[in-house]
Amino acid sequence: MVTDDIYLLGIDGGGTSCRARLCTEDGRLLGEGRAGSANVRLGVAQSYDAILQATDQALAAAGLDRTILARTWAGFGLAGAVDQDRKASVLAYPHPFAGIGIETDAHAACLGAHGGADGGILILGTGSCAVGYRDGRFSVIGGWGFMISDQGSGAWLGLKAVRQALLAHEGVVAASDLSRALMARFENSAVAMLNWSEQARPRDYGAIAPLVLEHAASGDRLALELVEQSAAEAGLLLERLLALGIDRICLMGGLSRPLEPWLPRKLQPHLCAAVGDAMDGALLMAKQRLIAVRSV
Amino acid sequence: MVTDDIYLLGIDGGGTSCRARLCTEDGRLLGEGRAGSANVRLGVAQSYDAILQATDQALAAAGLDRTILARTWAGFGLAGAVDQDRKASVLAYPHPFAGIGIETDAHAACLGAHGGADGGILILGTGSCAVGYRDGRFSVIGGWGFMISDQGSGAWLGLKAVRQALLAHEGVVAASDLSRALMARFENSAVAMLNWSEQARPRDYGAIAPLVLEHAASGDRLALELVEQSAAEAGLLLERLLALGIDRICLMGGLSRPLEPWLPRKLQPHLCAAVGDAMDGALLMAKQRLIAVRSV
Repeated sequence: MVTDDIYLLGIDGGGTSCRARLCTEDGRLLGEGRAGSANVRLGVAQSYDAILQATDQALAAAGLDRTILARTWAGFGLAGAVDQDRKASVLAYPHPFAGIGIETDAHAACLGAHGGADGGILILGTGSCAVGYRDGRFSVIGGWGFMISDQGSGAWLGLKAVRQALLAHEGVVAASDLSRALMARFENSAVAMLNWSEQARPRDYGAIAPLVLEHAASGDRLALELVEQSAAEAGLLLERLLALGIDRICLMGGLSRPLEPWLPRKLQPHLCAAVGDAMDGALLMAKQRLIAVRSV
Repeated sequence: MVTDDIYLLGIDGGGTSCRARLCTEDGRLLGEGRAGSANVRLGVAQSYDAILQATDQALAAAGLDRTILARTWAGFGLAGAVDQDRKASVLAYPHPFAGIGIETDAHAACLGAHGGADGGILILGTGSCAVGYRDGRFSVIGGWGFMISDQGSGAWLGLKAVRQALLAHEGVVAASDLSRALMARFENSAVAMLNWSEQARPRDYGAIAPLVLEHAASGDRLALELVEQSAAEAGLLLERLLALGIDRICLMGGLSRPLEPWLPRKLQPHLCAAVGDAMDGALLMAKQRLIAVRSV
């Protein structure tokens, strides 16, 4: 069967995995796929490898093949696509699509969360990032990586816990159940913790966050202090969105649910549920691109 | 001239350079030398390369050659020699010396600062570390590296400044002269800061500390807050030494002089000047080793 149907493809290219959702022009789901990280910082070629692998899966699920990609408008939400140079390098790379719209995965998540309407998101996962969308323009706060950014994130909650546990182990600050539980993970040895830290990535620090949250739930003084700090940091990001006139905000990421009860009460009325995910947002970007081209 | 004189060699093997001081048994200075880092974490062979290069310089300055090393007792103060395994690997490595005493460079600095008497040191440089010596035993607090330790250090002062400057740049917290001066170093661009941070080492963060101190001196609110935090952290390390019964403490490292006025007033009476350096401390370790062997 030969048709000239138009297709839309939404790519959620996060730091750990790349997901693809293929739809008809009017939004009917045809198929989905998944591959490894499409983070642009790993290189444009590697990013496209993941995108096309996920796309092939979506095509297979839809019973279609790559011949339709010339009639497929794609929206890429790609981790690391934070500046014009990186976006331009993705657009300039040889690709099989009719056209591409590109933003970061966080932008795509924001569009998807509010179905393309004005609103914001605050991602609290291993890292953190706030994005607002209003009057057709994006605002981004944070998301500049573990070392210089990621306030309120799981990685920083874990890092702070590790640092305080080591201080407690050395008698510099008071010990607590959390600090003891954490040092026990390192054989109660500063040297073991040091050796671990030399290889530790943000996700390794983030993996400690659940232990902190558990102890906060049972009233551990140190855990409470750290969780309150994280919530206060997340609160500052939310307040910045509000100051930008964005007053409907979805929380996202693995730390969002456990941290929500600790957020300042006055912020709670501004929180809402997401109506879609980052692939939906990327599909909206694909559609916007198609509409823009048609209107020329 | 053939003699059977005994020699003492003190090695200060820090993270950035290795210094050697050669003396007669009764402490007369014969010569000094200097080489690159002898940090054990870079490998025992590389550590010895630096030690022997610095030693050769000291021998040349003394008009002596390596034949005397078989009658030379050495004290090694080596960065990274934090556990028994690493110390044992240094002692087991083929070397030309009559005998070796080994501790970290911070231990050696502590011995040197008090001429082998009871006392402590607090190193506030790129990193931080407190060492106490009392009744023939060492206590070490901190010094476990940038990520999990180094409270009160220049690297953390710089890191915190960078993080706050970026938050201010994004309107999350109030800007200040310091935050603006810091962002100007990164072309007022979060992306430029991100790119820098991906390669930044602790010394790169530490290099920002002087800017913070300058602004604190002129009353910048953010700078004052950060410097007060650093001083409070340094104060906790000092208080831990006091709690261990170590009440004469020398401050060391590039941040010690600028941070001293900010330390809690009650701690000031416990601060004192050093009577010697880490090579002097390493020479004491060499002498202790010689005495221990002779007394067998």
